[in-house]
Amino acid sequence: MRATVMFEAGDVRVETVPDAHLIEPTDALVVITRASICGSDLWPYKTMERSEPGRRMGHEGVAIVETVGADVRTVRAGDLVIVPFAYSDGTCAFCHEGLQTSCEHGGFFGTGQADGAQAEAMRVPQADGTLVPVPVGPDGALLPSLLTLADVMGTGHHAARAAGVAPGKTAAVVGDGAVGLCAVIAARRLGAERIVLLGRHADRIALARQFGATDVVSERGDEAVERVRELTGGFGAHSVLECVGLEQSLATAMGIARPGGAIGRVGVPQHDTMPARPTFYRNITVSGGPAPARAYIEELLPDIIEGRIEPGRVFDRVARLDEVPAGYRAMDDRQAIKVMITP
Amino acid sequence: MRATVMFEAGDVRVETVPDAHLIEPTDALVVITRASICGSDLWPYKTMERSEPGRRMGHEGVAIVETVGADVRTVRAGDLVIVPFAYSDGTCAFCHEGLQTSCEHGGFFGTGQADGAQAEAMRVPQADGTLVPVPVGPDGALLPSLLTLADVMGTGHHAARAAGVAPGKTAAVVGDGAVGLCAVIAARRLGAERIVLLGRHADRIALARQFGATDVVSERGDEAVERVRELTGGFGAHSVLECVGLEQSLATAMGIARPGGAIGRVGVPQHDTMPARPTFYRNITVSGGPAPARAYIEELLPDIIEGRIEPGRVFDRVARLDEVPAGYRAMDDRQAIKVMITP
Repeated sequence: MRATVMFEAGDVRVETVPDAHLIEPTDALVVITRASICGSDLWPYKTMERSEPGRRMGHEGVAIVETVGADVRTVRAGDLVIVPFAYSDGTCAFCHEGLQTSCEHGGFFGTGQADGAQAEAMRVPQADGTLVPVPVGPDGALLPSLLTLADVMGTGHHAARAAGVAPGKTAAVVGDGAVGLCAVIAARRLGAERIVLLGRHADRIALARQFGATDVVSERGDEAVERVRELTGGFGAHSVLECVGLEQSLATAMGIARPGGAIGRVGVPQHDTMPARPTFYRNITVSGGPAPARAYIEELLPDIIEGRIEPGRVFDRVARLDEVPAGYRAMDDRQAIKVMITP
Repeated sequence: MRATVMFEAGDVRVETVPDAHLIEPTDALVVITRASICGSDLWPYKTMERSEPGRRMGHEGVAIVETVGADVRTVRAGDLVIVPFAYSDGTCAFCHEGLQTSCEHGGFFGTGQADGAQAEAMRVPQADGTLVPVPVGPDGALLPSLLTLADVMGTGHHAARAAGVAPGKTAAVVGDGAVGLCAVIAARRLGAERIVLLGRHADRIALARQFGATDVVSERGDEAVERVRELTGGFGAHSVLECVGLEQSLATAMGIARPGGAIGRVGVPQHDTMPARPTFYRNITVSGGPAPARAYIEELLPDIIEGRIEPGRVFDRVARLDEVPAGYRAMDDRQAIKVMITP
């Protein structure tokens, strides 16, 4: 079968690899209907050291179940399922608490722990705890939005939850990538009265406004902090959704958070440390991490099926599997917000 | 009048200073009944650079109101009051939210912003928003516990709140100083099923056990982390109350927190940075800061008056005002947990 393999920074290819197949009785084999390229895939695309046999890429998928192992109970051949970016057993203490990204028997797709979703097919470990069947057909207009439940919409929602977004509060979203845009949707959905997007790209800003952003700040660094404070009576935002993961973006997040407020971090940190004092003296909570996307599907799915939110609009380019390398280039060059992959 | 002045590290003296007096119509003048030396006073005692005229010390007091300014409404001459470590107007947005340590017109006693409590008397700015009258006489056995509401008990409670202590959960308290011991009281009061104290001093450990600690870990660093994980089924503690403020103690706190758990920091950070990644990958929340002790008095006072908690037991030495320098030495040498000062 064909699958996306990254060999080093800038070198991503679609290769012929051994066909995916069941290994454990708890596995499912799925055929990918839609996958996508994630902002986090761009970190190895920028920095990965040479590797043979390379790294199988992709961790967001909507798929059709081809076959399941003998112990699988909750999905069956023919089901259309969402494949979240982490697999999880569904039975451990953390899964029961809704923190599937800390599952005792879990792991992450497309990181070397399991297959990647930018492929024709993949083996899904812990199928019962991982896959979520969805009650729609495989050709529907809902596929892009369903695909975002595998990662970016759940991640934006996690940022909003971690940052304590609540009705009547002010939220600020740092970053106008696909996660930032989904974070705007999530903040609005949770009732934020004011949503300030920190971003610089006209097309993304336009989409953010349609998603519910009420203000846009395109300055950077200290100027951005000053601008957000001006917009918030000098106080800062109750909830800051950090959707980038750079040292500077986190510093900005800390600067624009209101005393007593919270920062929900979902951008994978590319930095080793963060300042210890600014958040302390102002009693600012720093929360977040890898989103338990699996836990949020149940909550978010009805809003997608009934058309109340359309996170699938973050996909502004579609590529066939063999066009994936061009998709990486387009996202890395910021020619595309997010690329959806079709078979 | 006499007041405690620190001139540089190791040089703290009781000096004759100009009598405290009203300046603003919102001020009160109070005569100190009880004050204390705080663990945080030991930081300047270790590190302060030479200063003339020096820094007036002390930020925890129980006092009797001597006279009040024309605009003061809620306290009057003769009232026994708690003087929390921060003054606050009681009317701004942050005071209404219960975050008096971010008051728009507030500040901190004994830091150069206002008088210190290790003195015969002091001027209290924003008296209405700051002082809390207590319904007991000035000679009662409750004075030590009431005094802890000015800082350490409120601070321990803040650590517990920030760390999300809840019934049935496991709490770990890093540090066996007065704040750590009060944090044990707070964790028990909020229903923690298991309370692990990380500390090394026999007298403090004994008191912590009486306050409700169920387990004690006296190892340090990686060994402490390993031990707490052993005690918690390999997972770590849901709530970690960081009551020290050193880089190493925070690293330990991060190491022993359960995925999805929270760290409540109340030890004033003596370090510039903290690790960005360990808390992210395990979705650990880092919260806390200067405790709004003023906000917590109403909640904690009944438990003290009705004898359910006795945080005043953290005072294991009493000094007269002129003995304050010896009190600093005793605390710095760990000969005393916490020193209470009488007139």
